[in-house]
Amino acid sequence: MNEDLRINLYEQAKEWIYKAGENIRLKMNGPLTVDTKSDAKDLVTTLDKETEKYLAATIKKTYPDHKLISEEGYGDELQTLDGIVWIVDPIDGTMNFVEQKRNFAISVGIYEDGIGEIGFIYNVMDDILYSARRGEGAYKNDRQLPALQDELLLDESLLSLTHFWLCDNRLVDKNNMMDLVQKVRGTRSYGSAALEFAMVAEGVLDGYLSMKLSPWDVAAGMIIVHEVGGITTAIDGGSVNMLRNQAIITAHPEIIETIIEQYLQSGK
Amino acid sequence: MNEDLRINLYEQAKEWIYKAGENIRLKMNGPLTVDTKSDAKDLVTTLDKETEKYLAATIKKTYPDHKLISEEGYGDELQTLDGIVWIVDPIDGTMNFVEQKRNFAISVGIYEDGIGEIGFIYNVMDDILYSARRGEGAYKNDRQLPALQDELLLDESLLSLTHFWLCDNRLVDKNNMMDLVQKVRGTRSYGSAALEFAMVAEGVLDGYLSMKLSPWDVAAGMIIVHEVGGITTAIDGGSVNMLRNQAIITAHPEIIETIIEQYLQSGK
Repeated sequence: MNEDLRINLYEQAKEWIYKAGENIRLKMNGPLTVDTKSDAKDLVTTLDKETEKYLAATIKKTYPDHKLISEEGYGDELQTLDGIVWIVDPIDGTMNFVEQKRNFAISVGIYEDGIGEIGFIYNVMDDILYSARRGEGAYKNDRQLPALQDELLLDESLLSLTHFWLCDNRLVDKNNMMDLVQKVRGTRSYGSAALEFAMVAEGVLDGYLSMKLSPWDVAAGMIIVHEVGGITTAIDGGSVNMLRNQAIITAHPEIIETIIEQYLQSGK
Repeated sequence: MNEDLRINLYEQAKEWIYKAGENIRLKMNGPLTVDTKSDAKDLVTTLDKETEKYLAATIKKTYPDHKLISEEGYGDELQTLDGIVWIVDPIDGTMNFVEQKRNFAISVGIYEDGIGEIGFIYNVMDDILYSARRGEGAYKNDRQLPALQDELLLDESLLSLTHFWLCDNRLVDKNNMMDLVQKVRGTRSYGSAALEFAMVAEGVLDGYLSMKLSPWDVAAGMIIVHEVGGITTAIDGGSVNMLRNQAIITAHPEIIETIIEQYLQSGK
């Protein structure tokens, strides 16, 4: 992608995301306060659609030739990633929105011919924007994130994964996952794929595993993680396909192979 | 406890906790920046001791007849909870401190003759203080936390627990825990008992289970959760013993019995 276009897209998308986030915060904290879980459920349903509609309309108006993949139905039905494709999740971490009224994010990835050029993950309630342009490093607000440290042992790692990896499932042998949980330094689970990608990029998690992610859950995160030297793949080590759902791992480069070979693929 | 004494103790302890927190933040963000995990490990070891030493010295100097239970060795060896006992964890969430440089807390509970009178959980890096005085409600900074909503179904609940509950263990049948994980709306794991208690009090988690908590991990949290109508017990439903380590559940009153009877105790 032409550098001027990339900077231009980056600045514009950032402005739109901030504006969408502000709207969400206003409605979350505003006079129509969210008091109960039912209120929050209604609000997230509304805001999910409203935010996506706003972003979709703004993108389409400004860049009529760009394509859009998104969750709530305002996107295009794509068979390929040719051209410039925006991949948008208006609210990633819906359950956190409803139950916690925080810890959710707007996620926007911009791809050209399948290559991730620009990524944004916006933690709306904390007003923290993670962003990256390909080859230009990743940022947390205005601060550049350092590259992931050179060395890391699996038994010194902190991983995020849901508890379902330890229940009966079709993807992996749960006994392997028990071994993995007992091998690493610690495990966490936060309930927002986008924010968990951002935490891997920040180095506060060393890896994140998810059983079923849609393109809009990973599109931005992959770009941001890549810029600090992290790696994202399908759980068999294959590349991520932005046109379908997949089980995915994103992690520090020093541990990803071991996790895939010794735990995710072993015995399957 | 006499109301004047309780208010007095509350105000003083609050001041000391803020001061201790400020010291931790200064050293975390200061000129001797924490760049690596090894640096962070050294720093947390130092700050754990330093913070406890400061609190212990201040308490003992101001209230020579008060007792102290704490983690790092500046406390008393107590056989009973008679009198006024401070139960202190200078840094709860050590692994988060080292790996994330956030998401840890100072926890202080003040008991009289075994009854929890005052509780503080201070999220140091976010500068958020959860506090409670017995019978006076719980607070997040200056905002009183509402009582937990009247109704809650288990399948609408969000629980926090480590992944170890789903591995082979001596406490519960892991198959029951798999059923529980699949029954509830969602599960999380955050790595700081004190902050997870605070989240239960705030209603952003409906329950938190831990396999092995020391008195200083739960002393403040129990008081704060109690003030919004939550319940804390041993995982067999028995009362918590502040003189030893225990597996503990703290939860919304509408779901705690079911979790204990149908999942934690069933089949044991």
